[in-house]
Amino acid sequence: MPSKQVNKSMSTPIQMIDSDSSRQTAHVPAPAHSYKVFNRIIDWITNDRMQLLNITDRINEIVRKSGVRDGLVHLQSLHTTSAVFLNEWQDALLHDAKTFFDQIVKRDEYYRHNDPAYSDCERRNADSHMRGMLMGQTLCLQVRNATVLLGTWQSIIFAEFDGPRSRSLAVQVSGV
Amino acid sequence: MPSKQVNKSMSTPIQMIDSDSSRQTAHVPAPAHSYKVFNRIIDWITNDRMQLLNITDRINEIVRKSGVRDGLVHLQSLHTTSAVFLNEWQDALLHDAKTFFDQIVKRDEYYRHNDPAYSDCERRNADSHMRGMLMGQTLCLQVRNATVLLGTWQSIIFAEFDGPRSRSLAVQVSGV
Amino acid sequence: MPSKQVNKSMSTPIQMIDSDSSRQTAHVPAPAHSYKVFNRIIDWITNDRMQLLNITDRINEIVRKSGVRDGLVHLQSLHTTSAVFLNEWQDALLHDAKTFFDQIVKRDEYYRHNDPAYSDCERRNADSHMRGMLMGQTLCLQVRNATVLLGTWQSIIFAEFDGPRSRSLAVQVSGV
Repeated sequence: MPSKQVNKSMSTPIQMIDSDSSRQTAHVPAPAHSYKVFNRIIDWITNDRMQLLNITDRINEIVRKSGVRDGLVHLQSLHTTSAVFLNEWQDALLHDAKTFFDQIVKRDEYYRHNDPAYSDCERRNADSHMRGMLMGQTLCLQVRNATVLLGTWQSIIFAEFDGPRSRSLAVQVSGV
Repeated sequence: MPSKQVNKSMSTPIQMIDSDSSRQTAHVPAPAHSYKVFNRIIDWITNDRMQLLNITDRINEIVRKSGVRDGLVHLQSLHTTSAVFLNEWQDALLHDAKTFFDQIVKRDEYYRHNDPAYSDCERRNADSHMRGMLMGQTLCLQVRNATVLLGTWQSIIFAEFDGPRSRSLAVQVSGV
Repeated sequence: MPSKQVNKSMSTPIQMIDSDSSRQTAHVPAPAHSYKVFNRIIDWITNDRMQLLNITDRINEIVRKSGVRDGLVHLQSLHTTSAVFLNEWQDALLHDAKTFFDQIVKRDEYYRHNDPAYSDCERRNADSHMRGMLMGQTLCLQVRNATVLLGTWQSIIFAEFDGPRSRSLAVQVSGV
């Protein structure tokens, strides 16, 4: 079998529709003086060791205040034992997600980070670090028409992996 | 063993070469009026439940049209059961990637999202959600010299985890 | 049990503190002529097959040189068998991270990419590709006050998954 060859299912012609007329936001004129960067830090206190928070409304509120109509909103959790990502906000699914995090990174395995012989960290939170590293602490989304662009089922989720704790999220909106 | 100390292999001096003359793009002069944001949505229809699509050419075409020479191109799939990421576009490797997704998130495990007692979703696609969450629905890349910056072996890959479906990807090019 | 309902722990009121006065960087005035994009490529040679490098200081040096005070710094490794992410830079934890990468993607499983019948790649590095794909080759961080915004324990880590090799990382600083 030849290498570097796209297989059948992949070479199936993809129907690409370029939504020129209906959905394209035309070239934003962007008067030079209008480029701006709007920085905020939001804080909260979590209640459980692992907890998922829906922060979508909070982010949209900041985007509205920023005065940016088209550009990017960048979210950065300032903690290594946390993460920010998109998913559907449904109770059953959130339960599955937590189970998945528990299974993909076991809490009770041996970790040097939890071993006083190797580490001075007393939180025994190596699993929290692995989960944060795997899921990522940053998320960048598009701003269009002065709101965060999200698909119908997409919510912005902050994941606490080592709570309860006080947590900070840096939000930056930039654009025109 | 002391904690917070970098180990041998890590403290090995790293040869850092700062490519000042040859590779640095000098300070882009950026006349103020040239900052722009260019928004597009592209659509396609997938054929399989799990499918990988090479969308590199499509993205480069949009970047060319945008008129942005230096800046960022941000990709955001509008669906929670999909992902966008970089990898080599080789048939054998794509097969391995699909196997990896199948193994890291099992389809046939118990999920509340698939259980009518907890969820009104009839697609039984909890695994698709976990895969999308793990791999991420956004990707931000650099634009240099009016093209997407990619390493020799890097292709932009859209992953369908719950097809066949109609899918939309929001593309935003911003910069000067 | 009703679906689409937030469960107990999640509906617990979250104490959201919007740090208006103390931490907010006020609307950056952003004189139009000041928007800039600053591009660099940095190179180094890795020593081990799997190796983690702390590149925080290197990135901060580039941000300082860029003249950007508020905006984004985007990092993009140009290699599919590598990754860039945030984590605490502690010897014990880095050891745990490497063990985690070894476990979550097994090196000695069967992969088509390593099989001469399917692939002309002689490096037998399918595991390296999977690790790079899982962890991601890009990282975008905020620039505030002319430095990279990082939490107390966050370091920027470049992960080599198929060394020893010569590696390049594209760094782009943009903003005002």
